[in-house]
Amino acid sequence: MKKTVTTLADGRELLYYDSRDDVVRDAVDRRPLDAVSTSSEVRRDPLLGDSVAIASHRQGRTYHPPADECPLCPSRDGRLSEIPDDSYDVAVFENRFPSLAGDSGRCEVVCFTSDHEASFADLTEEQAGLVLEAWIDRTAELAELPQVKQVFCFENRGAEIGVTLGHPHGQIYAYPFVTPRTELMLRSMEAHRERTGRNLFDDVVARELADGERIVLTGEHWVAFVPYAAHWPYEIHLHPRRRVPDLRELDDAARTEFAQIYLELLRRFDRIFGPGEPPTPYISAWHQAPFGEPGREEFGLHLELFTIRRTSGKLKFLAGSESGMNVFINDVPPEAAAQRLREVASA
Amino acid sequence: MKKTVTTLADGRELLYYDSRDDVVRDAVDRRPLDAVSTSSEVRRDPLLGDSVAIASHRQGRTYHPPADECPLCPSRDGRLSEIPDDSYDVAVFENRFPSLAGDSGRCEVVCFTSDHEASFADLTEEQAGLVLEAWIDRTAELAELPQVKQVFCFENRGAEIGVTLGHPHGQIYAYPFVTPRTELMLRSMEAHRERTGRNLFDDVVARELADGERIVLTGEHWVAFVPYAAHWPYEIHLHPRRRVPDLRELDDAARTEFAQIYLELLRRFDRIFGPGEPPTPYISAWHQAPFGEPGREEFGLHLELFTIRRTSGKLKFLAGSESGMNVFINDVPPEAAAQRLREVASA
Repeated sequence: MKKTVTTLADGRELLYYDSRDDVVRDAVDRRPLDAVSTSSEVRRDPLLGDSVAIASHRQGRTYHPPADECPLCPSRDGRLSEIPDDSYDVAVFENRFPSLAGDSGRCEVVCFTSDHEASFADLTEEQAGLVLEAWIDRTAELAELPQVKQVFCFENRGAEIGVTLGHPHGQIYAYPFVTPRTELMLRSMEAHRERTGRNLFDDVVARELADGERIVLTGEHWVAFVPYAAHWPYEIHLHPRRRVPDLRELDDAARTEFAQIYLELLRRFDRIFGPGEPPTPYISAWHQAPFGEPGREEFGLHLELFTIRRTSGKLKFLAGSESGMNVFINDVPPEAAAQRLREVASA
Repeated sequence: MKKTVTTLADGRELLYYDSRDDVVRDAVDRRPLDAVSTSSEVRRDPLLGDSVAIASHRQGRTYHPPADECPLCPSRDGRLSEIPDDSYDVAVFENRFPSLAGDSGRCEVVCFTSDHEASFADLTEEQAGLVLEAWIDRTAELAELPQVKQVFCFENRGAEIGVTLGHPHGQIYAYPFVTPRTELMLRSMEAHRERTGRNLFDDVVARELADGERIVLTGEHWVAFVPYAAHWPYEIHLHPRRRVPDLRELDDAARTEFAQIYLELLRRFDRIFGPGEPPTPYISAWHQAPFGEPGREEFGLHLELFTIRRTSGKLKFLAGSESGMNVFINDVPPEAAAQRLREVASA
């Protein structure tokens, strides 16, 4: 893998990750871009105790552009995009419309492939492995920024969940605080340790393996299951068998097998609702340990993959109970979801 | 106000709330309904520590029926609905497709008016006052059920947030546990008391009144503002000036003024995005103290009203950061939202 670091016309960082070591990425961004000025502000809610990013400059962000104006395609035929080169394998750059910037963190865009029409599930294992290397590298670099407490690599896929650029891409949010979701897990983990003397993540995976009913797929180094109390109609948690706090600590064997396992899960996701159904909208979220927190070594890295589609043509909405009270109602029993996700395995 | 209690053909409870004391509600439900069988199950998530309602029977629930098959209209002209009478003011009944039932709680539907084409904002003050009386009565009755820890009255409005019945209605969820959202508030409240010796809800309202910049509307008995760390593009919190833990303890003066204030807020909501824009989708949520919890007397009842529309034709989606990490990104500064909500006041 070869990594090339450069900057865009407005000073934002751009990184190329290539499979071939002999690729030269020296194209210059010739766009007349103004310097990025953002007004991101993190405010603390006194009642909920959480932090909200107020980012008004984002209202003007690029919204469903036509394919020939895609800012994530390579620059070609005189059309200049966010990526100056006329090709790339994986490209990462700082978001021009960040939710978090400066002291409040950093937001990056990860272009999974230069092929505008592809989706992650269409990648080869080699390409998917390269994306994993990019996630690992970004986690390692962002961990070094003094204001960053936690790195979140994720993909939103599908207009139904608000994706405004069709080009296959994900995002990385580097937060200046431990997120509420991670805080909940750390708290449960500590309580479990006190009560049982054991690690919560290990026990959750062991229980799912013992039950078996909600297992979706197992590899030599990974276990995928629908959790016992799944919040979403179809939700998969993917854990490495050897628990590690974050992506950097995955060993070579786990890294190598990841691409194969993850691609299979994504391909099954697109088959849940049967043939002729449009691609399944999903959110794919890496849960990593925050930096410098007590207990971080006990945290269990895992990937959460879920869809908001509950049945053909119908979405799960976060309405009163979920948005008002944080109580999820799930219409699909986790055991039925797991069975469906086993049925649609690749031949 | 006159309340009439009866039952539907399958044994579910139905209650009429009428403004006139001389109304007789004795129509019988003549539908051949099977007894309701639900498989609601509450499961605890070991990582997040929250409870999820698994309710698979809901997949078959009524979904966008044509107006002449509306189950919330009165029964008329030989067409039998959920409400046997041929008219009503406010009607409440147990949901046939509940997320919570039996030991796991109870779900009710509140029909705000028999007028299928109306919305809450179209009600008269008298009608809105009657809905408030129904909410108060339901809170009082559900508080007596031994399995119920918390009563949540709310309205989801608009297909954009998943409403599947167009008839103006809200819902009541009676949870068998303290919800995660309320737990967060109780925890912040206790920490604030320890740190300052003061009540958090009182201090939040006092701060907003002192700042002034985010105030939307004040009455003699109510204060409405956009909170300092609003999570949603347009979000209003409505607090009674005299703090009470739940709806039952509002005094007559606050009850009387509520209808006027709330109707004005809803009407402003429909004007945020200018003329010609379809009605604003919203969630309206009553935050009440749970029952029998330490500190419940310190809790501050308030109503939270918010929309997921961020600008004309564009919705705020809960994507990776919100759904994966519980971190909200808000593109509309609260001060700008409040200013807009003052601009669109009724003449």
